[in-house]
Amino acid sequence: MSNKVNNSRPIGIFDSGVGGLTVLKSIKEILPNENLIYFGDTARNPYGPRSKSTIEKYSEDICNFLMSFDVKFIVIACNTASSFAIDFLQKQFPDTPIMGVIVPGVQAAIESTKNDKIGVIGTVGTIQSGAYTKRLKNINNKIVSFSQSCPLFVPVIEEAWMEHKITPMIIEEYLVDIKNSDIDTLILGCTHYPIIKKQIQDFVGNSINLVDSADTTAMSLKNELSKLNIENSEDKNSGNIRFYVSNEPERFKLTGEHLFKHEINNVQLVVW
Amino acid sequence: MSNKVNNSRPIGIFDSGVGGLTVLKSIKEILPNENLIYFGDTARNPYGPRSKSTIEKYSEDICNFLMSFDVKFIVIACNTASSFAIDFLQKQFPDTPIMGVIVPGVQAAIESTKNDKIGVIGTVGTIQSGAYTKRLKNINNKIVSFSQSCPLFVPVIEEAWMEHKITPMIIEEYLVDIKNSDIDTLILGCTHYPIIKKQIQDFVGNSINLVDSADTTAMSLKNELSKLNIENSEDKNSGNIRFYVSNEPERFKLTGEHLFKHEINNVQLVVW
Repeated sequence: MSNKVNNSRPIGIFDSGVGGLTVLKSIKEILPNENLIYFGDTARNPYGPRSKSTIEKYSEDICNFLMSFDVKFIVIACNTASSFAIDFLQKQFPDTPIMGVIVPGVQAAIESTKNDKIGVIGTVGTIQSGAYTKRLKNINNKIVSFSQSCPLFVPVIEEAWMEHKITPMIIEEYLVDIKNSDIDTLILGCTHYPIIKKQIQDFVGNSINLVDSADTTAMSLKNELSKLNIENSEDKNSGNIRFYVSNEPERFKLTGEHLFKHEINNVQLVVW
Repeated sequence: MSNKVNNSRPIGIFDSGVGGLTVLKSIKEILPNENLIYFGDTARNPYGPRSKSTIEKYSEDICNFLMSFDVKFIVIACNTASSFAIDFLQKQFPDTPIMGVIVPGVQAAIESTKNDKIGVIGTVGTIQSGAYTKRLKNINNKIVSFSQSCPLFVPVIEEAWMEHKITPMIIEEYLVDIKNSDIDTLILGCTHYPIIKKQIQDFVGNSINLVDSADTTAMSLKNELSKLNIENSEDKNSGNIRFYVSNEPERFKLTGEHLFKHEINNVQLVVW
């Protein structure tokens, strides 16, 4: 009985802003029973240009906030924070399981590739940090990886230009070399990118398998909850979602609904 | 004699990042004798999404740093900080003349317009704040203004896509309504935009006069220095420039040289 009560505890998910909503959406689809709390650090994003120690501090602030809801699991739905802060957070919060978006993406890509050639696309910060390419090499040193930063993808997505005639041209500009590089697997290494997954697939063709870090993180989370025996198995499809941001809840709601393709209600402003 | 020594004191110029380099460039061209210190707050940019009190605090930090060089004048080469922090800074540093980019742009636009119809383009933050439109109305309440935020312009410029075939399409997307709105004057309300001034002019046509806030700020600065009798009239063309940033001096140098079309040397990292 106590175990059941325990299992309805929420899962905390955080990002520097709206990008992590793609991860939230995949989690909601795969784990509809779970209660979810999403935190977007809209006062302090983007995290890309910040130093490791700053990102550790920001992430710790957020995890402390999430802890006040007695979360049973924390998902870092942000590539930069996943790369820079996960080891630190796991030390600071040793009693709470914490997962980022990078390791699930890397594992899915390694499972997917048949020719050991993997592409990675992301923001300038993610690509320059080598977050994906180093982990790919660590797991299998035969992997050859091709990286490309795509700085216009995030603003294009936040403008909701998914169907705009300019978007395929921008995709071509960034991905023409990757497409011709003989990779069979491409990691979408930014939480915004699943929103233009179809457009990217149209350009690169079906011979390249896209690894969507939102879906792979949600699948990994499902496996971990099961392994730890902490799923919320009651109340089918009744999980709720609460949203918190550190700045401009209205702008978050507007941009988020564009991206999330779902109503976002009761976004609460947090000041600490 | 003491006056001459005094006049070689440097001018401090700051921005949240690289955008203010267009202002620096115009100042260097118009005032080649002056010694200049540029500060780019690369650790904490962009300022757009931050609150007024945060931007006041950041700007005060920077002005305190500039004061350590005994600057004779401070130019806020950033639209957001000009809008939010100038009154605060003028109170905090009453002995130092401080100028932003907005007032010079507004004054130049009012002088330029013949039909009292003025367009303003800028980042989402600048446009939503009404920084330009309110000031235009305050000076002349007959002015009708048309505003448009252009979120892709900054990333396109930072990608150095000035000659890319996609850029005119993005310009058309954002400016088609402004072009057809019967304005005769358009304020480039973002310090990045002078870099694509030619491309914007090509699209809107020669019947619309572009007000470039970099040039207008440099001209205003020249007038103010003259009025205060603090120009550096010695050492023709010998003014030096020093660069300071709060993060990633190498990335600043690379992006800055793209935009500034000029070598950037000895960028120093400041930690406070």
